[in-house]
Amino acid sequence: MIRFSVLGCGRIGSMHARNLTRHPKARLVSVFDVVTAASDAMAQELGVKAAASVAEVLADQDVDAVLIATSTDTHVELITAAARAGKAILCEKPIALDMAKVDQCWGEIRDLGATIMIGFNRRFDPSFRAVHDRMTAGEIGKLEQVIITSRDPGPPPIGYIKVSGGLFRDMTIHDFDLARYFAGDIVEVHAFGGNLVDPAIAAAGDIDAAMVTMRAASGALIHINNSRRASYGYDQRLEVFGEKGMLIAGNKTATTVQAYSAERTGAADVVLPFFIERYADAYANEIANFVDSVATGKAPLTSFRDGAEALRLADAALESLKTGKSVKISHS
Amino acid sequence: MIRFSVLGCGRIGSMHARNLTRHPKARLVSVFDVVTAASDAMAQELGVKAAASVAEVLADQDVDAVLIATSTDTHVELITAAARAGKAILCEKPIALDMAKVDQCWGEIRDLGATIMIGFNRRFDPSFRAVHDRMTAGEIGKLEQVIITSRDPGPPPIGYIKVSGGLFRDMTIHDFDLARYFAGDIVEVHAFGGNLVDPAIAAAGDIDAAMVTMRAASGALIHINNSRRASYGYDQRLEVFGEKGMLIAGNKTATTVQAYSAERTGAADVVLPFFIERYADAYANEIANFVDSVATGKAPLTSFRDGAEALRLADAALESLKTGKSVKISHS
Amino acid sequence: MIRFSVLGCGRIGSMHARNLTRHPKARLVSVFDVVTAASDAMAQELGVKAAASVAEVLADQDVDAVLIATSTDTHVELITAAARAGKAILCEKPIALDMAKVDQCWGEIRDLGATIMIGFNRRFDPSFRAVHDRMTAGEIGKLEQVIITSRDPGPPPIGYIKVSGGLFRDMTIHDFDLARYFAGDIVEVHAFGGNLVDPAIAAAGDIDAAMVTMRAASGALIHINNSRRASYGYDQRLEVFGEKGMLIAGNKTATTVQAYSAERTGAADVVLPFFIERYADAYANEIANFVDSVATGKAPLTSFRDGAEALRLADAALESLKTGKSVKISHS
Amino acid sequence: MIRFSVLGCGRIGSMHARNLTRHPKARLVSVFDVVTAASDAMAQELGVKAAASVAEVLADQDVDAVLIATSTDTHVELITAAARAGKAILCEKPIALDMAKVDQCWGEIRDLGATIMIGFNRRFDPSFRAVHDRMTAGEIGKLEQVIITSRDPGPPPIGYIKVSGGLFRDMTIHDFDLARYFAGDIVEVHAFGGNLVDPAIAAAGDIDAAMVTMRAASGALIHINNSRRASYGYDQRLEVFGEKGMLIAGNKTATTVQAYSAERTGAADVVLPFFIERYADAYANEIANFVDSVATGKAPLTSFRDGAEALRLADAALESLKTGKSVKISHS
Repeated sequence: MIRFSVLGCGRIGSMHARNLTRHPKARLVSVFDVVTAASDAMAQELGVKAAASVAEVLADQDVDAVLIATSTDTHVELITAAARAGKAILCEKPIALDMAKVDQCWGEIRDLGATIMIGFNRRFDPSFRAVHDRMTAGEIGKLEQVIITSRDPGPPPIGYIKVSGGLFRDMTIHDFDLARYFAGDIVEVHAFGGNLVDPAIAAAGDIDAAMVTMRAASGALIHINNSRRASYGYDQRLEVFGEKGMLIAGNKTATTVQAYSAERTGAADVVLPFFIERYADAYANEIANFVDSVATGKAPLTSFRDGAEALRLADAALESLKTGKSVKISHS
Repeated sequence: MIRFSVLGCGRIGSMHARNLTRHPKARLVSVFDVVTAASDAMAQELGVKAAASVAEVLADQDVDAVLIATSTDTHVELITAAARAGKAILCEKPIALDMAKVDQCWGEIRDLGATIMIGFNRRFDPSFRAVHDRMTAGEIGKLEQVIITSRDPGPPPIGYIKVSGGLFRDMTIHDFDLARYFAGDIVEVHAFGGNLVDPAIAAAGDIDAAMVTMRAASGALIHINNSRRASYGYDQRLEVFGEKGMLIAGNKTATTVQAYSAERTGAADVVLPFFIERYADAYANEIANFVDSVATGKAPLTSFRDGAEALRLADAALESLKTGKSVKISHS
Repeated sequence: MIRFSVLGCGRIGSMHARNLTRHPKARLVSVFDVVTAASDAMAQELGVKAAASVAEVLADQDVDAVLIATSTDTHVELITAAARAGKAILCEKPIALDMAKVDQCWGEIRDLGATIMIGFNRRFDPSFRAVHDRMTAGEIGKLEQVIITSRDPGPPPIGYIKVSGGLFRDMTIHDFDLARYFAGDIVEVHAFGGNLVDPAIAAAGDIDAAMVTMRAASGALIHINNSRRASYGYDQRLEVFGEKGMLIAGNKTATTVQAYSAERTGAADVVLPFFIERYADAYANEIANFVDSVATGKAPLTSFRDGAEALRLADAALESLKTGKSVKISHS
Repeated sequence: MIRFSVLGCGRIGSMHARNLTRHPKARLVSVFDVVTAASDAMAQELGVKAAASVAEVLADQDVDAVLIATSTDTHVELITAAARAGKAILCEKPIALDMAKVDQCWGEIRDLGATIMIGFNRRFDPSFRAVHDRMTAGEIGKLEQVIITSRDPGPPPIGYIKVSGGLFRDMTIHDFDLARYFAGDIVEVHAFGGNLVDPAIAAAGDIDAAMVTMRAASGALIHINNSRRASYGYDQRLEVFGEKGMLIAGNKTATTVQAYSAERTGAADVVLPFFIERYADAYANEIANFVDSVATGKAPLTSFRDGAEALRLADAALESLKTGKSVKISHS
């Protein structure tokens, strides 16, 4: 039984806390949030302790692992402190918005031996996972092209945009990780960005649409398209194309109902609204993978390095956006 | 080169005449219609002769084959006369509305050796044909169930209903033939009918919706559903279920476009409006099969017997409708 | 908080017990099974009491409701006893295999005021429910036809077949209920049955394939097809056709992956294997509906009468199978 | 009636010639090919004259229009000569492989008033056309993203690769035109290329896979992916994404059959093999548009300028491939 404390009781922290209570080999011990009301509510709902401070959590010998779901600017500090306290760590993406901080963090924790996982939920989606496993098993032969469609249903508040690190570090970072999951190391990145959704996003210095193209060390080509708005729901698709075939993972809908009328046929529901619904299974699988890693010592599916590499690609995309050149990535 | 005359220049006769002009081994020589204006127009459009009478056509030594697309009440007489004149015959379904007339017709022509085909277009549909060929090749193992969905886009004029012989002989007759094509001899028939579309059809003594269930000699069970109205177009589907699998042939749409919006996703066009469009390929294949039969002496895919058997099933369905009992069909 | 005891710790009772522990307004108090090892295991897994007898459960003042998941032959006795003990009752289908017993049971409990629900899971499936709600909201206009496809992945053990009451009472009973959910009272039933799957089923006096056709009081026509085997998984589909359109609810697969290769395109996974997986959401919704009914006094979605009527249709189908006639059902 | 001569009796010229014989307002007068046997065979098949030379064709007062389907290196010369001879011109893409030649050709013919159309077949595909018309009618609101998937079933002979002008000018040129059809003027182009299919193509100095990203003057972003090989057939898809929705045009298969088995469900046929089959309707529509243009004086849907602009984008993509920079396109 792995005993957890959840740091951060916002939308995603709460979801993780609930998932932890459902996992047979995990036990939620406590929750913490800087907003006391939030942690109190969560603690009451789940029948666990509301910790008074991070320090209390890290000092708690009944806590084996922390799940960090606080705001991004606290991640590095919490990861470092938790690693020093000997806790296993599952931290939401991104590690940080600044590559130097990520490297520094790694320097601090590298030798501490902590189990650490960065929460890239998509690798745990049953459909994306099945595509990966079938590809690895040889079903499409050598991988040649990856097409990732990733469009949010609507833009976040401008306040969030301002501290998000920008579209590439906040949103595309998931797609960068997914690209690496399928195509391995990336050696070249090009990006086009646009402001097509909301002028306020441009005013805040960010883009709201993008097309990124990348080349992998293997020679595979990868395309990512992003938008901060999709009228029909949270659009999350993947196409993997190879010598012998292609695998496509599509969107999910709430029902299997198709409608026929004088105007149209085979019309399905809109796709699931956003990440909480779309990746419900993925989040549960992510917890399961982490629990299994802590219990067995196996490496988690998404490592600290994966978090660092995804951020590196985000930075490269941003540089490409500014320079109009494709950016090379070296791998020593 | 097989030289043709088309008898009947209505909607379906005209279509057949045009198809004949496109077949490399067929040559349209003449057309005839009791409405002179119709045959004149057709003759002019296609650059062929407008025959003055059926007698003229049958006496024409340059005519090898007649395509009979006149009204149903003339079929038996024309088939008989054409067979006596030594012509090959492709006759639209049904042979007649009265089984006794069909049997009598067969008695007249049986020994004349004419090549004769009854125009059951569906056997020639590329999708239904592919299902048949794959089933025959063993893909689904032993056939267990057949589901035929067959719904017209809208009811015909009441004037047509009155002379149609009723829904089973006019509309379901295609499905009876399709059932036999897949499941072979039918030994038992049950039918429910209803008046759900238009009270005027009830007033004319006919039904406008039906569900027919049948048992084949092989043990396979067959379901047919019919409606004289489908808001989304001409609904023509087939499901063939067996020990090892299932094959489904769906509807056809004008384009492959799918639409996504805030209300629905993956919405396709309405299905092709009616038989001329839906079975365009089937009609061309039907002509090709007949031309090939005349040229080579091979039996056409849909024989006089097929026409007779489909009518027998229609009569059995009608009897079941009246008696509330399933009706047994004997095969000597 | 509604406090439950689960009677019967087999496959389906265990699933219900686990679902009860996840419902925020339900609390599982105890479980019982005649096989002590089964109830002990369940009790330990879920941290509840293993009751020593039904009598102990019914005498327990901490139990508000019983979920009856024992073998069919015990249902009537347990329903009656539980109603007398003042418990709310959620009983798995069927109530009994003998209509007289069902009527007698109703006579015993009618005036006792117990909340009673019969577990017809399909009404609670999100897709079937959505079809129902959209139909009721007028999307397809007046209902004209219902097509229910219901095929098990493989036959149960012969031992189960022998006590099952036969295909219509054991398997089709779900489809009879679904038909009533959509089309209301049924007035006429016809059935064809067959032995296409396993000769041992025939030897046990049962059929393993069927096609049932029914007419509703509204005039709507209903088709049900059943098979005890489907190579591609548990085939559960519904088509509802009306004046203005059609709604189809399809099968569910574990992922959204589609495969493209030199042999085929758009190939999806096999469908979910059987009822536990296919109706996982439905079972949770069923519990929720029952808990809500007990808490609020609202009638459950599936009543004792629904259980009785479904059995009446099963008996009518069996009579039709034997007589070759369609069987009329009167509604006083 | 527009009277045609077809220059070039290879695969695509023959197809055009046959299509011309089927168009009610076109009449094929003659065909020409430098390989006499080819023009003789075509002439005999279609019952037209085999011209002895281009000069004979251009001097023929019975020829209103020429369809140029010869090798690319002859296009400019033939266009110029035909325009001077007062003929209307339908020329296969590309106009030339060298932008200077295209500009020079335009200088020669600009003032001659000839109707000239460049054969970009995809604009005439019923599905792509429907997407365009629905987008223009406002269905998806402002266009934001275009995704074009365009993969050949297999690579052409190396001999063809060597004279093709390279993947961008030979294959992607269709996608460049399609991008302009949907998104209008393009202002920036980036390309990644790869050699993933056949080392012999690399040896011939060409790439066999590519991902191109473009920005339109409107702000819309466009992605094109190409491969010289797709195991499942000729992959031709289009996705158009906008503020209010998305329209997707998919591949075409020979039948609507879907297969279900113990391994997979809903498996369709492989997609139509190559352009002759996939774009059969498009080629017929292209002829119809050209005939209509010649008859009425309306501008053809695909102009000389369209041919020039597509080549300009191909050149820009090639420059981007070489420099690693995105290339700006100016529109005066």
